Amino acid sequence: MQLTQYTDYSFRVLIYLSEKTEGLTTVSEIAKFHSISRNHLVKVIHNLATKGFIVTTRGRNGGMMLSRPPSMINLGDVVRKTEPNFNIAECFDAVNNRCVITPVCELKSFFSEAQTAFLRVLDKYTLADTLIRDQQAQKIISLPASTKST
Amino acid sequence: MQLTQYTDYSFRVLIYLSEKTEGLTTVSEIAKFHSISRNHLVKVIHNLATKGFIVTTRGRNGGMMLSRPPSMINLGDVVRKTEPNFNIAECFDAVNNRCVITPVCELKSFFSEAQTAFLRVLDKYTLADTLIRDQQAQKIISLPASTKST
Repeated sequence: MQLTQYTDYSFRVLIYLSEKTEGLTTVSEIAKFHSISRNHLVKVIHNLATKGFIVTTRGRNGGMMLSRPPSMINLGDVVRKTEPNFNIAECFDAVNNRCVITPVCELKSFFSEAQTAFLRVLDKYTLADTLIRDQQAQKIISLPASTKST
Repeated sequence: MQLTQYTDYSFRVLIYLSEKTEGLTTVSEIAKFHSISRNHLVKVIHNLATKGFIVTTRGRNGGMMLSRPPSMINLGDVVRKTEPNFNIAECFDAVNNRCVITPVCELKSFFSEAQTAFLRVLDKYTLADTLIRDQQAQKIISLPASTKST
């Protein structure tokens, strides 16, 4: 039972940006901080911009920032808009489903109910809840911008 | 957001067996009914036997059957014992996790809470709840044993 790496990386980008209270962030900066391939991140960031979580600016001094405060970015909403699909089992995929008992099987509705419960838990939290704010956190998340802005 | 094909196929085997109220079922019978590769099914069935959901008998007239009535096989229990792991995100994998913010990130606990909610929904149902019992069902699930035993 997994979410995709795509959603995982989407959260890493959003959490990074939630710490950057000033200035724009570059793709390279996050790629370096998280040791993630730049190519991977470009796709993730493009999707986050398309879905309205971040705004990007092109050009020499370009970069990205959150489109709204972290407390306004809901975690359930992020998962719904970053996961490529919610096909818990083959029967969720109307095009490729080959399971012969689908018309008389209740499993799909039980899985749907379970999936709704999963997302409802995440709906209770926002990006502002994700980072523990203490001295240990300050040491680990010593982002360039935080340093620059002090 | 997906369960593995392994869990999907495990459910297909268990649901098939829940319809077979008499006699033993062979791997080939289920492979043919569901058009699934026999090799795939052998692994699935071995795991279901190891985890105590089915009992298997070797030999010429060998086969398998549920170890207990369908109403005694809980769906949450099946998912817990067929999914290879519950690593929702990389931070759940203690060995391979490389996410640098793990010590100060609450996302893992939110995902754990969501996963618990997912499984709790499935804990409400048993294998006996999975098939709609009506005339349409009878037509689709015309298993060899049902025919043989009448």
